[in-house]
Amino acid sequence: MKPDLSLYLVLDPVMCGGFEAAVSLTQRVLDAGVTTIQLRAPQWKKRDWLRLSQQLLPLCRDAGVPYLINDHLDIALACDADGVHLGQSDLPLQVARRLLDPDKILGLSVSNLQHLQSDDCALADYLGIGPVFPTGTKQDADPAIGLVQFCDWMTRIRQPVVAIGGIGHLETADVIRAGADGIAVVSAICAASDPVQATRTLGQLIQEARQ
Amino acid sequence: MKPDLSLYLVLDPVMCGGFEAAVSLTQRVLDAGVTTIQLRAPQWKKRDWLRLSQQLLPLCRDAGVPYLINDHLDIALACDADGVHLGQSDLPLQVARRLLDPDKILGLSVSNLQHLQSDDCALADYLGIGPVFPTGTKQDADPAIGLVQFCDWMTRIRQPVVAIGGIGHLETADVIRAGADGIAVVSAICAASDPVQATRTLGQLIQEARQ
Repeated sequence: MKPDLSLYLVLDPVMCGGFEAAVSLTQRVLDAGVTTIQLRAPQWKKRDWLRLSQQLLPLCRDAGVPYLINDHLDIALACDADGVHLGQSDLPLQVARRLLDPDKILGLSVSNLQHLQSDDCALADYLGIGPVFPTGTKQDADPAIGLVQFCDWMTRIRQPVVAIGGIGHLETADVIRAGADGIAVVSAICAASDPVQATRTLGQLIQEARQ
Repeated sequence: MKPDLSLYLVLDPVMCGGFEAAVSLTQRVLDAGVTTIQLRAPQWKKRDWLRLSQQLLPLCRDAGVPYLINDHLDIALACDADGVHLGQSDLPLQVARRLLDPDKILGLSVSNLQHLQSDDCALADYLGIGPVFPTGTKQDADPAIGLVQFCDWMTRIRQPVVAIGGIGHLETADVIRAGADGIAVVSAICAASDPVQATRTLGQLIQEARQ
């Protein structure tokens, strides 16, 4: 499966307001145009990740939207998710490739030049590059890359790229114009007062920036 | 593989003093009589779990001692560990059974009567019952079961049992006499000034209590 990275939601169920709120938000933002979903629940234990995934996966399948799991390959295997998104300190991509079916999607977080030149990069189906801008969502985030450096990296990368980190309305147009295939957001949707409207607006900004 | 639970080390590499110290300690306590090892490194990222496991697994294989992974089935799959030890909030045992080869060992933590009556229990190769006594090692530990209640539970359980939580010299004899197949320790070995001597002493206490 080749993911449409245009509007990639990193779903934080705690930020959404809990289990039921996360299910409800997911259904609504799928209808509003989210194109990929990744579950990331660092405060949660795995049994809850699995329970939530068993609710979200049918919604994503109905919408034709890939459902990915952050970090935990075992949860992805347990619920038959469409892939995993791995960080530089998670299991190596070579290991993930071996453990997952060949059609599953492997994403990799890239935060600096060293990451970009690593062997893992070549094995990823897409790269999540960031934080492009400063962000308050991820406490242990690397320093922001900045738009100028991001533009430079985009000229060297052949894989699909989703930009992440501090991406709101203003930043969306910039990263898309720089060549990103899409934007990944957490709080811009999960913490929005109107997640459906936030999704629609981001979708429009992406479309406009591509023209 | 049927694990010998007699002297079960839950290896906390941070408590040992880091990666290299954990490798060195493991080799020495295997020689001194540890019979099962479980890696538990809650502060570590998975790439480091995997790196350490790749060092420890050959040592355990040479010693004929099972090497288990706490919680993370994906790491167990990645390094071909001998099994996993799961808590009540980790992935269900039914899922673990499906993802692991049938000869792999599945352990389950049990802290109260409700756990003991759960479906998961029947699928476990052994139960880790505790904390029997108060412990400072695990910050989110359940309330201590106490020796009287532990003795009562032992009369109802058919599976192999390893007792865990606050088990030092005095407590070792008690839980073995109550019918436990072994004791699981973290700080009693990892934080001992002389881990080899601590291992030998615990081994002797277990032997004596069985006579």
